[in-house]
This record gives sequence, structure tokens and C-alpha cells, in this order.
Amino acid sequence: MVRNPERRGALVDAAVEVLAREGARGLTFRAVDTEAEVPVGTASNYFTGRDDLLRQIDARLHERLAPDPAVIERLLEAPKDRSLVLAFMRDLMGRALRDRSGFLAGYEMRIEASRRPELRASYMKSVRGDLEYGIEFHRQAGLPGGDETVTVLYLAMRGLILEQLTLPGVLDGVLPGVDVPDGLLERIVETIVPEG
Amino acid sequence: MVRNPERRGALVDAAVEVLAREGARGLTFRAVDTEAEVPVGTASNYFTGRDDLLRQIDARLHERLAPDPAVIERLLEAPKDRSLVLAFMRDLMGRALRDRSGFLAGYEMRIEASRRPELRASYMKSVRGDLEYGIEFHRQAGLPGGDETVTVLYLAMRGLILEQLTLPGVLDGVLPGVDVPDGLLERIVETIVPEG
Repeated sequence: MVRNPERRGALVDAAVEVLAREGARGLTFRAVDTEAEVPVGTASNYFTGRDDLLRQIDARLHERLAPDPAVIERLLEAPKDRSLVLAFMRDLMGRALRDRSGFLAGYEMRIEASRRPELRASYMKSVRGDLEYGIEFHRQAGLPGGDETVTVLYLAMRGLILEQLTLPGVLDGVLPGVDVPDGLLERIVETIVPEG
Repeated sequence: MVRNPERRGALVDAAVEVLAREGARGLTFRAVDTEAEVPVGTASNYFTGRDDLLRQIDARLHERLAPDPAVIERLLEAPKDRSLVLAFMRDLMGRALRDRSGFLAGYEMRIEASRRPELRASYMKSVRGDLEYGIEFHRQAGLPGGDETVTVLYLAMRGLILEQLTLPGVLDGVLPGVDVPDGLLERIVETIVPEG
């Protein structure tokens, strides 16, 4: 295995693009080489196989879609009320919209995991980890609502992000006078999170 | 175009299986013929092209995943309170779990629609139609909560079904003492729907 970390990173990012654009079945070493504009055969020097590549994509997506610690820290200076929960949800939505390939690749990983037991365990760990992190973060920050609040909010955000990224505009005007995603995010938080 | 409706239906159902198992890129006429156990070349006599096949899959999924009118009618005899909303959500979850291929194929359609503008318009119309139907149904039945309640509930159910069908078990034990999906469905409805 070659150990140039910069090139490895570029190959994994290229693989994310391929996954988002072509779907799981389109993800071949050759497609990654083409996307990364490197000689054919390069990817096979960096990954032991397709499963290894998928695991590295999972790890990379985790980094790419993670919140910016500086943003979180700044937000946490505000009072710990429902409008702070809304600010966190806006940050999450903004990250999803800014890295559409990353989120679409994440959905492909998910579908691929539903078909391949060997991928499922590691991918489930990442997804579960995100939810548990959210629950713990909410508790530590002293935000209004309990673990159930966070879990229901997490599910509604998953649904919203799925709709917005795969069928942009599908929710526009469903609630008269409520713009999407901003106004809708407000309604989601008001519906799920207690006033505190 | 051949016009044997029974065979057409069998081919579309075979295509749903292929889509669920192989993903959008695996959906070829040849794969559909093999899945349906008919001679190679049969599917090409029934569909003008891949887009035509995808449109017919969309229509078929709509039928397959629709609620049973007799079940809806029976449920509507109960008082129009929050526990009736829960009964409807249980019915929806049950349908998703009983037709896992149908739901996974639906997610593939969605991802495919995000890549193909010509498919997007017709698929968006189906998805939007489902949400609008839900809002109208809730109003007509006099169930507790307004249009916002239904919209937020719809998004949370989308998230829950996505988690359960692609990563079964990922939510188990997240809320101690709450079983998945039954107990979690209860918490979702209690969190989102007013007591009424």
C-alpha cells in the first residue's frame, strides 16, 4: 500500500463524488482514478479492495459533514433555549446543503449497507454514534427537552434533509407562508422541542 | 408494444425487486427479464425505454405501498384522538416493513430522480401528492393538530422508516425501555401530536 496521505485523501474525496453521482454500483477503482485525474491503477495501490475503500469513505464523510467546533462554541454562548436548538438545526441543514455530494454519498452508503452485511456493522456504528453524540450534547448543553426530544428531532431532520437533497422544492408551499427550509425548520423545532 | 396486462405487472414487480437489490444502475431490461424468468427481450416489448419503465415502477409502488381502504375505514370508527394517529402510523410502519423491497426501490427512485431531471418532475408529484393527501386526510378526519403537525410527523416517519429499513436495529435501545419501532412510534406521536 502506498502511503501518500494527501493523494489518499484526494482519492477518497473523488470516490465520494463518484458515489453521489453514479451510485454504489458505479463505484469502481477505475471510476475513482478517472474522477481524481490520476493514472489508471492508482486507487488499487491505496485500497486493499472495495470494502476498504467504502470504510475510508465512511470515515471521510464523518469528517466532511461534522460541525465546525468554532461555530458550535460560538453558538453555545447564547441562552440555552429553544431558539438555540433552532440555530443548531440551521447549522446542520446548512452543512447538508453545502456538501450535497457528501450527503448523497451518505445515502448511497446506507443503501449499500442494507445489502452488504460486512459494511452494515461499521456503518451502523457511525450512524448510531451520531445520534448518541446528539443526545449527549443536548444533555450537556442543558437544552430544553429530554432524550426523546432529541431522538424525534433527529428523525424529522433526517426526513427533511432527505427530501431537500433528493427532491429540492418538494416541500415548497406545503404550509402556506412557511418558506423552506428556514421557516419549516422553525416549525419543526417549535413542534418537537418544549419551550423550556 | 405488447398488451398483456398481467405480464406487464409481473415485469414491473420484477423491476422493483431488481431496483431494491441492485440499485438504479443495475436496472436493465435484461436484469428485469432474468428476475421475471421470461425470455431475454421480453421487457423491451413492454416498455418504450428505461424512463417508461421507471414511470411505471413509480405508479406500481404507489399502489403497492398504499393503505388498505378497509383498514382505514375500520380504524376511522375509533375516537378521533392522538391514539388514532398512532394507529395510522403503526399501519404505515407495518406496510413499510411488509414490503421492504417496495420501500427500498422507492429510495432508489428518489436518488435516481435527484440525478435525472426528466424523472424528477413526475416523482416529485407522487411524493408531494402523498404528503398533501396526508394533510387533507388528517383535516377531514378531524384528528388533533394542524397542517404543521402532519408535516412534521411526515418528516419524522420518513426518517424512522429510512433508519429501520436500511439499518435495522440502529435505533434499538437508544431510549432505554422503549422498543423499536412500537414504543418509539408512541414517543414520536406523543412528542409531535397535541393531546387534542
